[in-house]
Amino acid sequence: MTQPETRVSPGLADMNLGDMNKEEFRRFGHELIDWISDYLERVEDLPVLSQIEPGDLKAQLPSTPPQKGEAMDDIIKDVDRLIVPALTHWSHPSFFAYFATSTSAPGIFGELLSAAFDNKAMLWRTSPASTELEEVTLDWLRQMMGLDTGMTGIIYDTASVSSMHAIAAAREGVEMRIREEGMSGRKDLPLLRVYVSEQAHSSIEKGVITLGLGQRGLRKIPTDAEFRMDARRLAAAIAEDKENGIVPFCVVATVGTTSTSSIDPVPEIVPICEKHAIWLHVDAAYAGSAAVVPELRSILAGCERADSLVVNPHKWLFTPFDLSVLYCRHLDLLRRAFSLVPEYLRTPEQERVRSGSDYGVQLGRRFRALKLWMIIRYFGHEGLAARIREHCRLAKLFASWVEESPSWELLAPLPLALVCFRACPPTAEVDETARNRWLDVLNEAIMHGVNATGKALLSHTKLNDKLTLRLSIGNIRTTEKHVRQVWELLNEQLKLLSKQT
Amino acid sequence: MTQPETRVSPGLADMNLGDMNKEEFRRFGHELIDWISDYLERVEDLPVLSQIEPGDLKAQLPSTPPQKGEAMDDIIKDVDRLIVPALTHWSHPSFFAYFATSTSAPGIFGELLSAAFDNKAMLWRTSPASTELEEVTLDWLRQMMGLDTGMTGIIYDTASVSSMHAIAAAREGVEMRIREEGMSGRKDLPLLRVYVSEQAHSSIEKGVITLGLGQRGLRKIPTDAEFRMDARRLAAAIAEDKENGIVPFCVVATVGTTSTSSIDPVPEIVPICEKHAIWLHVDAAYAGSAAVVPELRSILAGCERADSLVVNPHKWLFTPFDLSVLYCRHLDLLRRAFSLVPEYLRTPEQERVRSGSDYGVQLGRRFRALKLWMIIRYFGHEGLAARIREHCRLAKLFASWVEESPSWELLAPLPLALVCFRACPPTAEVDETARNRWLDVLNEAIMHGVNATGKALLSHTKLNDKLTLRLSIGNIRTTEKHVRQVWELLNEQLKLLSKQT
Repeated sequence: MTQPETRVSPGLADMNLGDMNKEEFRRFGHELIDWISDYLERVEDLPVLSQIEPGDLKAQLPSTPPQKGEAMDDIIKDVDRLIVPALTHWSHPSFFAYFATSTSAPGIFGELLSAAFDNKAMLWRTSPASTELEEVTLDWLRQMMGLDTGMTGIIYDTASVSSMHAIAAAREGVEMRIREEGMSGRKDLPLLRVYVSEQAHSSIEKGVITLGLGQRGLRKIPTDAEFRMDARRLAAAIAEDKENGIVPFCVVATVGTTSTSSIDPVPEIVPICEKHAIWLHVDAAYAGSAAVVPELRSILAGCERADSLVVNPHKWLFTPFDLSVLYCRHLDLLRRAFSLVPEYLRTPEQERVRSGSDYGVQLGRRFRALKLWMIIRYFGHEGLAARIREHCRLAKLFASWVEESPSWELLAPLPLALVCFRACPPTAEVDETARNRWLDVLNEAIMHGVNATGKALLSHTKLNDKLTLRLSIGNIRTTEKHVRQVWELLNEQLKLLSKQT
Repeated sequence: MTQPETRVSPGLADMNLGDMNKEEFRRFGHELIDWISDYLERVEDLPVLSQIEPGDLKAQLPSTPPQKGEAMDDIIKDVDRLIVPALTHWSHPSFFAYFATSTSAPGIFGELLSAAFDNKAMLWRTSPASTELEEVTLDWLRQMMGLDTGMTGIIYDTASVSSMHAIAAAREGVEMRIREEGMSGRKDLPLLRVYVSEQAHSSIEKGVITLGLGQRGLRKIPTDAEFRMDARRLAAAIAEDKENGIVPFCVVATVGTTSTSSIDPVPEIVPICEKHAIWLHVDAAYAGSAAVVPELRSILAGCERADSLVVNPHKWLFTPFDLSVLYCRHLDLLRRAFSLVPEYLRTPEQERVRSGSDYGVQLGRRFRALKLWMIIRYFGHEGLAARIREHCRLAKLFASWVEESPSWELLAPLPLALVCFRACPPTAEVDETARNRWLDVLNEAIMHGVNATGKALLSHTKLNDKLTLRLSIGNIRTTEKHVRQVWELLNEQLKLLSKQT
């Protein structure tokens, strides 16, 4: 990224109004591939969390657009100079925050090809490759996860959107003419309700709000000591609501909650849903990928009787963001909820093929299946399973250090590769509430201390009103070395802060 | 793409569980850059419309996933052998169907970098670069389009989603506690209604359905002889609905309809919306980009008083799909409609920064601003305007040939770069309806004939119940040569079919 170049605005000096010429494309393309290859190596030496202050990048960019075209060299230089410092490096092997996720080489190549093909896969004919590769690849993933053949997959951008579509299909299934007549201005329509645990992801509530069902249309069920939905309380809530004239129509169980990766008891929830003919959607956005590991497949127990399930290959299958998959047993309902084919989209083959836009809000759809197909082929089922298995091993190793140390404690069970823990050194406080407040302050300081080093990134949650540190392992480049390092960083911060107090 | 290679499943033989090694990444990356560079050159010789039959690709792919990893060489070979024939080539310069759109080199490079950074820009801190570059780049685009400073941009994936968000913000603006209480089970809620022209895009109806407002919640206003919303009939419909206790809360005007690119009379619609305090959303998904051409800026007349406006750089600003921009005057309402911040997403700086996930259904957001920033810088405002100006010139040139020929006719005015036309050779039919039916059959046959040659792709619509051919010019590689060629193809087909009848 060094050769300087001067270039007049393309298409003005020479009246060539096309794209970049072939030689330039190759030259800059190669340069960027090498740059990315270096980036993925040196990212480990960059601060995980961007160290800029709000507004720093904006202040360095011109406030008006360039009139004339600029040289590609200058643009690439600015990626180095301005963009990289403003990135939080999700590709860093010590990114342990939120759900650690990662891109991978075959995924990057898939996105590169997709950007060149630039297909809009709204109809079969506008991208037969995208339509058919999606069907095949999602069936491969279904098999790898051990889901039954009744589940048909469809790709959306994010789990938020996948889950919203599942709830919309369930809403269509209540047979109250909501598509035709809507919900406003109707005195005949009872209150419709969706059920989740208190630990469910906020996207479910957001989907319910978007669909016009409102926060009142969502009931949160308490969880047990291990943060799993209490199925008896779900049954009681549904019975109570029905007595009050409310219509329960959808339960969203979570396999792998965001705070703790807890797994709702789907086998206990299934009969409740079946008894009341309620749609059961499973949010396995994070944890579903783990089911490709044969010995972890049991996390999806009961899902053979669920109506739909979301899993995000962009979370733990090394797929660049975005690619979320909704598996659904009732594509007909999804289609009824969303299909609208205007004249300008009618095609001769439409009765014989599947067209993605029939199943969702979005008309245009990116060719996302390509990257997932390349990833599954490059790593193979065994290669993917081996990586996820290793992440679980590393998380359990870290948890064992926590457990062995008197200064730290686990705050939740560890079914997969997310560790919930906190520092708990001895304190003068005897009152438990006061001690917890003190530990909250301490742990928050430890987290910010570690994050400020730039050497690792953690995030937090609250469990039983205790500030809880979260260590999530899911990056393809994370090794035992990185996990040991963050453990040392945590202990250094604890020591430093203990001295100060 | 020729060097053969054998490779054992990565991470199993050598217990290296990481990603592809650096040397392989560079080798295959360079190979793919060269392959894409060749593809973008030879795409002109490939059939625009994929010639495969439904199921052809599926039949060639294994029905089960590979257990072991495969060699990247083999995967790339299959892209050539299986994927390319199954693509409809949106990058082909003779793609004239739907809205012709195109990717471009700086856009492809932007997607390549985004896939490597793999940022999830839900919060400022998870991607300061994405958050701040989005603000700056969308302000550049706002200036280029001549929109006023009251309009703040936010990126979504598609116009369908952008418009749905605008309507959701308008719904929040009715102050009927729809976010909190929803719309079901409420006897106090009047019928809420959105207004569009009969020529509006189907995505508006789909958005209204998704939001729970139902098809009854959408009223379609007739258009004038030039396919523009009849503002007097809009005013009458609103008055009538209000008399009947219905609450009109949103009008969606279209600047550049999908069938004909007609432009609704926004300056006449504005006072109607202002009188009744109705949210005015402008769907300029296609045509909005043309406003970067100074002499075409007038297409957005009146939009300085609209509440929101969607424009899709992935349509006519050479941006790889997907990138849709919603400009909105009331971000506070959009935020009120969608913001939900659980504990695990709270950050110290959250009061001082903008976080994208506060404004939409989606939590995770791709780093889409990067490609648009690279495109605006590489081509410059003048370079982008010059290309769009040229597309309009080519469309007018084609339209002049249609007008000059006795065998063809225009079926709609031509404000930009979309031509609506049909063959109309003399026939024995005297009855107009019978003649139109005959011409429908003829024109459909002409379209399929041209498309079957693989040398160009057209699509159709219906105008005044007449089958209408659509020629859309928007690909960065389209030149006068391609437009002349499709004109010849059309005339060949007409001659061929006239002989047969």
